[in-house]
Amino acid sequence: MSAHSHDVEEGLSFQPRFDAAGLVTCVATDAATGDVLMVAHMNDEALRKTIATGEAWYFSRSRNALWRKGETSGQTQRVVQMRMDCAQDAVWIRVEQVGAACHTGRRSCFYRKVEQADGGAQLALVDAERLFDPDKVYRK
Amino acid sequence: MSAHSHDVEEGLSFQPRFDAAGLVTCVATDAATGDVLMVAHMNDEALRKTIATGEAWYFSRSRNALWRKGETSGQTQRVVQMRMDCAQDAVWIRVEQVGAACHTGRRSCFYRKVEQADGGAQLALVDAERLFDPDKVYRK
Repeated sequence: MSAHSHDVEEGLSFQPRFDAAGLVTCVATDAATGDVLMVAHMNDEALRKTIATGEAWYFSRSRNALWRKGETSGQTQRVVQMRMDCAQDAVWIRVEQVGAACHTGRRSCFYRKVEQADGGAQLALVDAERLFDPDKVYRK
Repeated sequence: MSAHSHDVEEGLSFQPRFDAAGLVTCVATDAATGDVLMVAHMNDEALRKTIATGEAWYFSRSRNALWRKGETSGQTQRVVQMRMDCAQDAVWIRVEQVGAACHTGRRSCFYRKVEQADGGAQLALVDAERLFDPDKVYRK
């Protein structure tokens, strides 16, 4: 292991390792249940704003824009704890989620489970109740 | 929303959307505690093998190789449930982890929390006990 990677893994210096697009992966889990709510990305500014404000900020790759979670929908995330992984290229935040994390209106983006089927796989809905109507919350 | 993305989000057809490198992001959580154990990647073959065998397979970007979790360390992951997210570009697996998920010997890769410090941030160890000595498990 190089001295650099040893420091990244074992050190207590916060040195996020952004990918070529300037992003780290962020997993948000429900602080109450442990369920994964969403997987998204943060750039340096989103990370810094999240740490400074205690609210989750992300970077949208599709919109190429910084984004405060819930700024349109009102479905904000208060960060209870943030952790970095060994490589410092992934972040885990435990959050108090207001309403639904998913833009489809579900509590979690993971509202379908994968099941084996005929040598392949298919999906089945699970915890897929909508908490809001996305057509009413987002302008199309 | 395009007809295609509506189908990806609302359909029950398993159609993972791989990135330019052929990968989806995978989050593994501890089925018992809800803790995030690791964030890694799967290619099409890793996904298919995971579904078919019920053991977690990943694709290592650094080694450019398919990899069965625990094949060197013995620290395998039995998949209790797999879910896909709305965009079908991220997978969540709830697993029964044998021993430690992290190559550093910790139960989880997320053994450091982020704390505000002097307008910036620093890390602090949390749940950082080593369950194995990586020098003894991996050949250097």
